[in-house]
Amino acid sequence: MSTFVLVHGSWHDGSAWEPVRTHLEEKGHRAFSPTIAGHGKGVDKNVNHAQCTQSIIDFILEKDLYDVVLLGHSFGGTILSQVAPALPERMRRLIFWNAFVCEDGNSLLDEIPDHYQALFAGLVAQSSDHTVTLPFPIWREAFINDADLELAQAAYARLSPEPYQPFCDKLDMKPFHAVDIPRSFLNCTEDIALPPGEWGWHPRMSNRLGLYRLVQMPGSHEVIFTNPIGLAEKIVEAGRD
Amino acid sequence: MSTFVLVHGSWHDGSAWEPVRTHLEEKGHRAFSPTIAGHGKGVDKNVNHAQCTQSIIDFILEKDLYDVVLLGHSFGGTILSQVAPALPERMRRLIFWNAFVCEDGNSLLDEIPDHYQALFAGLVAQSSDHTVTLPFPIWREAFINDADLELAQAAYARLSPEPYQPFCDKLDMKPFHAVDIPRSFLNCTEDIALPPGEWGWHPRMSNRLGLYRLVQMPGSHEVIFTNPIGLAEKIVEAGRD
Amino acid sequence: MSTFVLVHGSWHDGSAWEPVRTHLEEKGHRAFSPTIAGHGKGVDKNVNHAQCTQSIIDFILEKDLYDVVLLGHSFGGTILSQVAPALPERMRRLIFWNAFVCEDGNSLLDEIPDHYQALFAGLVAQSSDHTVTLPFPIWREAFINDADLELAQAAYARLSPEPYQPFCDKLDMKPFHAVDIPRSFLNCTEDIALPPGEWGWHPRMSNRLGLYRLVQMPGSHEVIFTNPIGLAEKIVEAGRD
Repeated sequence: MSTFVLVHGSWHDGSAWEPVRTHLEEKGHRAFSPTIAGHGKGVDKNVNHAQCTQSIIDFILEKDLYDVVLLGHSFGGTILSQVAPALPERMRRLIFWNAFVCEDGNSLLDEIPDHYQALFAGLVAQSSDHTVTLPFPIWREAFINDADLELAQAAYARLSPEPYQPFCDKLDMKPFHAVDIPRSFLNCTEDIALPPGEWGWHPRMSNRLGLYRLVQMPGSHEVIFTNPIGLAEKIVEAGRD
Repeated sequence: MSTFVLVHGSWHDGSAWEPVRTHLEEKGHRAFSPTIAGHGKGVDKNVNHAQCTQSIIDFILEKDLYDVVLLGHSFGGTILSQVAPALPERMRRLIFWNAFVCEDGNSLLDEIPDHYQALFAGLVAQSSDHTVTLPFPIWREAFINDADLELAQAAYARLSPEPYQPFCDKLDMKPFHAVDIPRSFLNCTEDIALPPGEWGWHPRMSNRLGLYRLVQMPGSHEVIFTNPIGLAEKIVEAGRD
Repeated sequence: MSTFVLVHGSWHDGSAWEPVRTHLEEKGHRAFSPTIAGHGKGVDKNVNHAQCTQSIIDFILEKDLYDVVLLGHSFGGTILSQVAPALPERMRRLIFWNAFVCEDGNSLLDEIPDHYQALFAGLVAQSSDHTVTLPFPIWREAFINDADLELAQAAYARLSPEPYQPFCDKLDMKPFHAVDIPRSFLNCTEDIALPPGEWGWHPRMSNRLGLYRLVQMPGSHEVIFTNPIGLAEKIVEAGRD
C-alpha cells in the first residue's frame, strides 16, 4: 500500500481531490492533498514559486511522511520538480499527471504558447491582486471538454484566481535531474489544456523525464471532476513499484 | 435538445447518416442529413465548391433551421467553413469530424500529401465526367480499417464517384475566422484516411480552429458504417453547450 | 480462417506466444511461433541477421505453409522485411506489431535514439558472448509499464540475452518494397519502448509501409504478457482480408 501526496494545479486547491482521496483510502492507501500556498479561496495570493514549493515541503515534514508517491497535476509538476530534490530520501516515486516538466531555467510561462502568455498577461493586468482568473469559455472547451455544461459550471465555481508570480519564476531543474527517483507520466488522452502537438503535454513533457513509465486514460485535463474514480485507479497504476 | 445538420464527406451522400440520424432522434434531437450538390448516385457531377456550399445553405434556409449544430465530415469540413459565415445567426456550434480546415486560400488538394494528389489526378484523367472513384484497396485499408471485409464491401457499394472540381477550388477562410461560433473537433483515433503525423487530421486540422473542444472515439474514418451508435453518442458530446 | 506465423522480438523466444497461440487456435486459426536462430535460453548466440531471417524462412518451408499472415513484433519487423520478399507467394498479409521498418540500408541500431545505442554498446562490452541483457528498470518502466511488479518480474525471468550482431547488420529494404503484400500495423497506445514522438513506433515506422491498415489497442510493448487474449483478438483484426 502506498502513501500518496497529491499536488493540485493552477486555479484548484486541495479540496478538489476529495473523491480521489476517498477512493484511494478505500483501497487501503494513505492519501494527502495539501493546498499549495497562495491557492484556494480567501487567502493571500501574494506568493512566489519558492513559497509554493516550501508549503508542500513543510506539509510532508510536518506529517513526517516517508515512502511518498508524490503526484503533481499541471502547474503541480513545477512544484514536484522542486520538492523532490529537497526531500529525496522521503520519495518513492513521482507522478506527473499532465504536468509541467520545465526546461532548466525556464518558468512555466516559457513553456506555454504565445496566445496563452498574452492572455495571462492581459488578465493579470485587469486584476487588483496580481492574479489570473481562467475565462469560462477556455475552461469549458479546453480544460473540461468531457463534462456536460452543468458539471463544467459546478466545477468552475470551485476555482479561484491563480497567483501570477509562480508562473513567472525561473526554475532550477538541475537538482531534479541529479536525484534518481522513479517517475511516471499519467496522460489523459483528450487533455487539450495545452494544445496537442508542438506544445502538447505528451510526449513533450514526458520525454524530459528520462526513463519513465507511461500510463494513459481517456479524458480531459479535469478528470479530477469528470472521472475521479478512474483517475484514482490510474494513479495506483502509475504509482506502484 | 439539439438540431443537428450532418454534412457527409467525399464519395458519400446523406443516406449514409441514416442509423446515426435515427439514434439522435431517439434521444430526442432533431437531425438532418442533406446530400451535397453533385453527390450521390445518378446525379449531375458537374459542380464546383461554391455550388456544394450553396446546396447546404439552401437546405438550412428551406427548412428554416436555427440553433443548428452543424457537423462536417472529412470534405464536409470545407463546406462548414463556407456555410457557417454565411448563416452565423443560425449556428449554435460547429463540429469538425476528422474534417478539413483549410489554410486561407488553399483548396482541399493543397492539404493532402503528394501521393494522394497524384492518385486523384490520375483517376480523374481516367474518368469521363471529371470525377474520382476511390480504389477499393485504399478504402479497405485506410478508410474503413476497422470493418471486416463483408462490411467494407457493402459500404463501398454505397459510394459514388466524387466530383473533382470542389477539391480544386481555393477557399477563402477569412469569413470563417471572423465569426465567433463555438467549435468542436471529433477525432477517431484509428482514422488514417490522412496519414498520421505531419499530414494527419489531428492536431493539424484541429489546431487551426483556435479555441475548440476535443472529443475522441476509437475507430476509422468510417465509423458512420462501423459504429454509427457510438458515433451518434460522440456527436451529442461534441455538440452540447 | 488464417494461418499465422508469429515472430517474436528481442530478448524473447517463441514460447512467449503460448497464450496468444492457444487463443487463436480456439478461434479456429492455425498459429505457429518459431524461435528465431540465436534466441531463447541455452543456445549459441553467435548469429547474424541473415541467419535469423533464414531460420524463419526454413520454418515456413519445412511446415510448407501457404497463405501465411506473418507477424513481427519489435525486432521481428526486421525479420519480416527480409522473409516476406524471399517467400512472397506464401504470404497473405504482413502485420508489424510495434515493429521496426528500417530505412533502406539501415540497421536496427540506426533506427533507435543515441541513448539506447550507447546503452547497448556498453552492455555488449560487458558481456562475454556479444549479447545485450535488458536492464530490469528499463524493462519495468518502458517495456512492461502496464504490468504490476510481480508480472513484470515473472516475465523478465523468461527473457534471455539478445545477440548483438543482428542489431548491427545493415538491411536491404528494396526487395521488401518491390513485393506487393497487404500490410497492417498494430500499435499499442502505451508502448514507449521507443520514446514517443520523433523516435516513436507510430507513425514513424507505420508510415514507411505505404498503404497499410492501422489497428490499435491499449497497452505496453509487452501485451503478449499483460493482455495476450486482447492481443490475439487484435491480431485477428489486423490479419483478416
